[in-house]
Amino acid sequence: MNHDLHMDPDEFRRRGYEMVDWVADYLVNIEQFPVTSPVAPGQIRKALPDTAPEQPEPFEAVMRDLDEIIMPGITHWQSPHWYAYFPANSSGPSLLGEIAAAGLGVQGMLWSTSPAATELETVVVDWMADLLGLPRAWKTTAQGGGVIQMSASDATLVALVTAREQAAGPVDRLVVYASDQTHSSLEKGARIAGFQHVRAIDVDAEFAIDIAALQDAIAADKAAGLVPAFVCATVGTTATTAIDPVRAIAETARREGMWCHVDAAYAGSAMICPEFRHHQDGLELVDSYTFNPHKWMLTNFDCNIYYVADRQPLLNAMSILPPYLRNEATLSGEVIDYRDWHVPLGRRFRSLKLWFVLRHYGAEGIRAFIREHVRLAQDLAAKITADGRFELVAPHPFGLIVIRHVDGDAATTRLAKRLNDSGKVAVTPTTLGDMAALRISIGSTRTTAGHVNQLWSLIDEMA
Amino acid sequence: MNHDLHMDPDEFRRRGYEMVDWVADYLVNIEQFPVTSPVAPGQIRKALPDTAPEQPEPFEAVMRDLDEIIMPGITHWQSPHWYAYFPANSSGPSLLGEIAAAGLGVQGMLWSTSPAATELETVVVDWMADLLGLPRAWKTTAQGGGVIQMSASDATLVALVTAREQAAGPVDRLVVYASDQTHSSLEKGARIAGFQHVRAIDVDAEFAIDIAALQDAIAADKAAGLVPAFVCATVGTTATTAIDPVRAIAETARREGMWCHVDAAYAGSAMICPEFRHHQDGLELVDSYTFNPHKWMLTNFDCNIYYVADRQPLLNAMSILPPYLRNEATLSGEVIDYRDWHVPLGRRFRSLKLWFVLRHYGAEGIRAFIREHVRLAQDLAAKITADGRFELVAPHPFGLIVIRHVDGDAATTRLAKRLNDSGKVAVTPTTLGDMAALRISIGSTRTTAGHVNQLWSLIDEMA
Repeated sequence: MNHDLHMDPDEFRRRGYEMVDWVADYLVNIEQFPVTSPVAPGQIRKALPDTAPEQPEPFEAVMRDLDEIIMPGITHWQSPHWYAYFPANSSGPSLLGEIAAAGLGVQGMLWSTSPAATELETVVVDWMADLLGLPRAWKTTAQGGGVIQMSASDATLVALVTAREQAAGPVDRLVVYASDQTHSSLEKGARIAGFQHVRAIDVDAEFAIDIAALQDAIAADKAAGLVPAFVCATVGTTATTAIDPVRAIAETARREGMWCHVDAAYAGSAMICPEFRHHQDGLELVDSYTFNPHKWMLTNFDCNIYYVADRQPLLNAMSILPPYLRNEATLSGEVIDYRDWHVPLGRRFRSLKLWFVLRHYGAEGIRAFIREHVRLAQDLAAKITADGRFELVAPHPFGLIVIRHVDGDAATTRLAKRLNDSGKVAVTPTTLGDMAALRISIGSTRTTAGHVNQLWSLIDEMA
Repeated sequence: MNHDLHMDPDEFRRRGYEMVDWVADYLVNIEQFPVTSPVAPGQIRKALPDTAPEQPEPFEAVMRDLDEIIMPGITHWQSPHWYAYFPANSSGPSLLGEIAAAGLGVQGMLWSTSPAATELETVVVDWMADLLGLPRAWKTTAQGGGVIQMSASDATLVALVTAREQAAGPVDRLVVYASDQTHSSLEKGARIAGFQHVRAIDVDAEFAIDIAALQDAIAADKAAGLVPAFVCATVGTTATTAIDPVRAIAETARREGMWCHVDAAYAGSAMICPEFRHHQDGLELVDSYTFNPHKWMLTNFDCNIYYVADRQPLLNAMSILPPYLRNEATLSGEVIDYRDWHVPLGRRFRSLKLWFVLRHYGAEGIRAFIREHVRLAQDLAAKITADGRFELVAPHPFGLIVIRHVDGDAATTRLAKRLNDSGKVAVTPTTLGDMAALRISIGSTRTTAGHVNQLWSLIDEMA
C-alpha cells in the first residue's frame, strides 16, 4: 500500500498531543455540558453519512465531527454532577495506563504471548486481595487467584458455569438462588449457562435476603427432586446497596453442597477501608467473589476482578488446549494462562492501568477517596432526613442514598425527571417493589462537598 | 480526601504528552527489542513488591518501572517482524480513538446512557456490512444488525446460546457441528452454553470441512435420537486459513433446521476487497457472522463485530429488564440497547476507534493495506515453493502461509525454535494432525517487503 497512509510516529506524536489536550480540555470544561445528553433517538445517526468514506479524510475533519456530531450525544459519566447508576469513575493515572496498554498492543491470552501482561496482573490482583482483606487462600500464592475481566456479568457467568460443571446433577435439575434485589446479570448469566430454575428470594425490610425464605425455597426444591447448585450473596445491591448476610448464606451453601458467589461489584472497592469489612463477614466460606475497580476505584472501564477460593474447578471448567496454543511455558505448568480463567481468548493488558492507579494514589489515597464519598452521602442523607419533604427508603452504608418524596410516587418520579431534565445533574429513577424511588449515587472522581450542596439546592428547589 | 492527590487536568496534559511520547518512541524503536520476550517464568513477578504501596508514589517511579521491569517482559505484537498467531494490528488513528473513548469514560449499556455511543456503533457496523459485501438484510436498517464485542469467542458464545434457545429440544439432545480445524472457542463456547454433544468433523485435503462427513454425522445423530442444532463454518481457519464451503454448510443447516454461524474472525477483514468475497459465497443463507477488526484491520484490540441476519432471536435470548435500567427511550422501542446483544451489561465506546480508522484510511486505504499483506504472503510462498528445502502444507488464500521442512517434524520444529530464539522474528510452531508445521502470518501494520525479505534470509540461514 501507499505507506504514507499510515500515521508515522511523529504524526502520531503531534496528533497524540492534540488528543491529550482534547481530553484535558474536556475534563476542564465538563461542567459546562448538560449532564445527560438531550438528543432525540436517531439524531446522531442522521447526522452521519450512510456509507463509509472510500477515500482517506483529513484528521481535522474527524476531530471536527467528534466535537460537532458526537459530543452532543454524550452523557457525561465523568461529570462531578453524575449521581446516576453507580459511578464508572476514572483518573489521570488510569487514562495514562490505558494509553500505554493500547500503545503496546499486546495480547495476554497466554503467559508466553507477553509474560509481563500475565505477571503484572497476578501481582495486582494479589495486592488487591490483601487490600480488601480477602482470605489469604484466595491469592495466587495459595490455591485461589484472581483474574481481570470486562464486567461483573462476565464474572458471574464464569462462576455459574464452574458451579454447573461440578454440580451433582444435570442442568435441568439444578437451582440457582439469589434475592429479588440481585443484579440482573445473575438471571442473564444463569440463562446463558442453561440453568432452568432461578429463584428470586424475598428480602427483609432492609432489602437483604431473608435467610428463612432461602432455606424454605431450598427445602421445597429438594422435596421436588431438584438440586440446589448456586447461591449469590450481594454486598451492595444495585437498587439500594443492601447487604446480604454472607456468612449465613455461605453456611447454607456449604450444608447443601452449593457454590456460593459474592457479588460486590460496587461495594468491593470500599473494602480497602477496614471499617467496611464487617459487611462481608464470612468470606472464608465462599467460593467466588467479584468487584469492579472500574466502578468506584478510579480505574476506567473495563476492569473487573474475579476471585476464586480454589482455581482448580475454574480451570477444569474453562480449559481447552488446541495445538496452535501449545507452548513450552504452558506445558511446563509453571505459568498462568489467563485465557483459561474466562470466556474470551484474547485479552488486553488491563492490569497496567490498575497498577498505575494503585501506585499514584497509594492505598491510603484510595481509602481517603472512598471515605470522602461515603461522608458526603451520609451528610446528604442527614439533610434529607431532617427535611420533612423526603424520606430515605433504605439503609445507606456506602455512597448511595435512595430517597422518596413523602407525597408519593408521582411526586418522586416528577422530582427525578425535573432533576435530570435540568441538565445540571443526573440521578436514577427506579422502583422498589411498586414504590417509586430516586437513587443518588455519590462516587464521581471530582465530586466535592460543593457539588453535593448544589445537588441539595436543586432538590430543594424542584421538590 | 486530599484533592491534591488527583491528577488535575494540567498535570494530566503534561503526563499525557509524556505518555504519547513514550508510545511514539516505542513505535520508533520497536525493532530494537527481541520480538518475543526472553524472560523466564516468574521473573517479572519477582521484580515487583509483594504488597501494594500504602502511600502515593511519584509518577516518575511508575514510568521508570514500566521501562525497567515491565518492558523486558513484553512480546512485541506490533513489531513489523511479528508473524506469529494472527496479527492483532493497530494504527495511529485507532490509538487516538482509544484515548478519546477512555477520556470520555462513558458507559454505552443503554442508548440513554450515552446516545452517541450507541448510534455511532450502529452507523459503523452498518458501514462495515456494506464494505464487506454482507447481505443487506443484516443491516440495522433491515431486520439484522451488528454489535461490537470483545472477541470472536464472545460472538460464538452468543450465537450458540441463541441457537440453543430456539432449538427444538432440550440441551442434552442438541448437537453442535464444526470441522476439526475450527477454533477452540467453538468447543469452549459450547461447553459454557451447556451443550453436551460437539462433533469435530473430518476435513478434506485442503483442511476444509468434508460435507459428506458432516451429513453422515448428522444422519447418525438423528438416528440416535439427537437434534442437530448448530453448525459453524469457518472462513479462514486458525491453523491454515482453510475455507469451509459456506453455501453447502448453510444449505445443510436450513434443511436440518440448524443455526448456521460463520467464523471469519481473521479473514473477514479481507472481504473489504471484492476479489476475496467468493470465499464466503452463500452468506444469504446463514444466521450469524463474526469478524475481528482488531486482527487485520488496523483497530487495536478489542474490537470484534458480530452480525445476525435477524435480531429478534438474539434479543429474545439475551434481554432482561430490571427496574433500574428502565427508561423512556428503551420503553419506546425506538432505540437500540446493545446490552441486549451480548453477555456483559457495561460497554466501552469502541466504535469511536473503528470510526477513526475508517475515516483516516478510507475503504480504499484499507483495501490497499490488505492487498499488500496478501501480495507479500504470496511472494514468500513462491520463494518457498521454489526452494527445495520446504513445502507449503496448505492453500494460502490470504496473509498466512504454513510451511514444513522436507526433512520432517524435527527439522521443522527446530527451524521454528531457532527463528523464535533469535529474537529477530516471531512465528508459530503448530501441528496439523500429527505433522509439525510452522505458521507465518503476515499482517502487522508496518511489515513491508523489506521485512519479509529479512525473514526469508533468516529462514534460509537457519534451515
